[in-house]
Amino acid sequence: MNAHQPPAPDFDTTFHFTGEPLDDAEALERRLRAIGAARYHDRHPFHHLLHDGKLTLGQVQAWALNRWYYQSSIPIKDALVISRFRDRALRREWRHRIEDHDGRDNDAGGIDRWLLLTTGLGLDPDYVTSARGVLPATRFAVDAYVSFVATRSPLEAIASSLTELFAPNIHERRISGMLENYDFITPEIMTYFKTRLGQAPRDAGFALDYVRTHARTPESRALVCEALVFKTEVLWVQLDALYHAYVTGHPPPGAFVPEDAP
Amino acid sequence: MNAHQPPAPDFDTTFHFTGEPLDDAEALERRLRAIGAARYHDRHPFHHLLHDGKLTLGQVQAWALNRWYYQSSIPIKDALVISRFRDRALRREWRHRIEDHDGRDNDAGGIDRWLLLTTGLGLDPDYVTSARGVLPATRFAVDAYVSFVATRSPLEAIASSLTELFAPNIHERRISGMLENYDFITPEIMTYFKTRLGQAPRDAGFALDYVRTHARTPESRALVCEALVFKTEVLWVQLDALYHAYVTGHPPPGAFVPEDAP
Repeated sequence: MNAHQPPAPDFDTTFHFTGEPLDDAEALERRLRAIGAARYHDRHPFHHLLHDGKLTLGQVQAWALNRWYYQSSIPIKDALVISRFRDRALRREWRHRIEDHDGRDNDAGGIDRWLLLTTGLGLDPDYVTSARGVLPATRFAVDAYVSFVATRSPLEAIASSLTELFAPNIHERRISGMLENYDFITPEIMTYFKTRLGQAPRDAGFALDYVRTHARTPESRALVCEALVFKTEVLWVQLDALYHAYVTGHPPPGAFVPEDAP
Repeated sequence: MNAHQPPAPDFDTTFHFTGEPLDDAEALERRLRAIGAARYHDRHPFHHLLHDGKLTLGQVQAWALNRWYYQSSIPIKDALVISRFRDRALRREWRHRIEDHDGRDNDAGGIDRWLLLTTGLGLDPDYVTSARGVLPATRFAVDAYVSFVATRSPLEAIASSLTELFAPNIHERRISGMLENYDFITPEIMTYFKTRLGQAPRDAGFALDYVRTHARTPESRALVCEALVFKTEVLWVQLDALYHAYVTGHPPPGAFVPEDAP
């Protein structure tokens, strides 16, 4: 007997793409949007539960706690992206991403806004920022993202940020769904997402223009697509781990255990 | 309301240890054995199902396919360990681990023995070795292990191999349990595990002696323990991902789908 090996898809996890040739920037953008439609984590069952009000407070806490590890790694990732370029104009353009998360004089920044959320959900900020209790799978996935931008080509480092193309939709849905469906969610603690509604499209637009212009061969366009697939996996793995630990109910040794766990 | 934060354990995922002071090699070894007893993946529910004959052929295939990615990364990991040492005696001692997996003149090696298992289970060896279909969580965890030995201290690189202290028990149980409980398992395809019964104790003994001798302060002994905790997480995450994808039934986009999946 032979195992089922799925028919050749439009793209697969080995990053060897098949389908429409990537002959120009238009074909590249079509492929990127197809990857987002098939693999972005708005399709993940954990997000459906989250947005539809189907989770307990403890499960929402687990999500916010783990996602804090992702959020707090983004400026480190962006500093590494900057470090890959001798082009000063590119570095200047990218720099505001670090400020958006770490803050500037008149703005506390995205990480502080994420802590508004975790604190609003009843988590001790010292516990959150210690990263104690974060799922090992979250750490491995997020660290793989940081390592990716440090070790792949500068083009791929930029391309891995392209999930932001698909972020505004999920943020809109999250804000309205969570406000409507949970009595412990207030507009104030959802500030992070409202701010990102303005920031993400600008960032995604720059990155999309960059890869459209700088990926000049079918091979380099394929690398751009592979980078986006990789990034969708970084996001998906985090939700799989949350689902397994806190919906199916198998938290691994040492991880956060909600007070309302069965 | 505050989330439940578990009482300070003997060790935790942030790698800040509490409990008995690590004042000498004896205390270190006791702590290492306690970590194994609490966190080694022989305790994981997926292994209970595997050894007790509770999985379908497709689920056993998924396990063997994903574990291939781990097996095939071990010589890369061991080459990195060797690369950390200027001490030629250490390099000579460690070198046989690469040979054990990659093979030598009169021995095909552990990776080929693992392919005996996957082929015996009905998987196409080209599909297995392409790593198409491997769960992203498996890749992130295994790659984190490779990265750990490349970037942490040489002492921690060696200490992360100490899970082998606990391997012989699980291999014995696996051989007898799987032979007894699955009609598709034969002694021939279990050769990998029988060979490791002889190799693992030698390797574990060397590494244990090494850390007992070379970790000379409580701080360095704590690093040794942290490295072992990290490694138990690398192993545990792989089984959590298998359980979620193939027992609960949520394979992520692009991953292997068994023919007998519901």
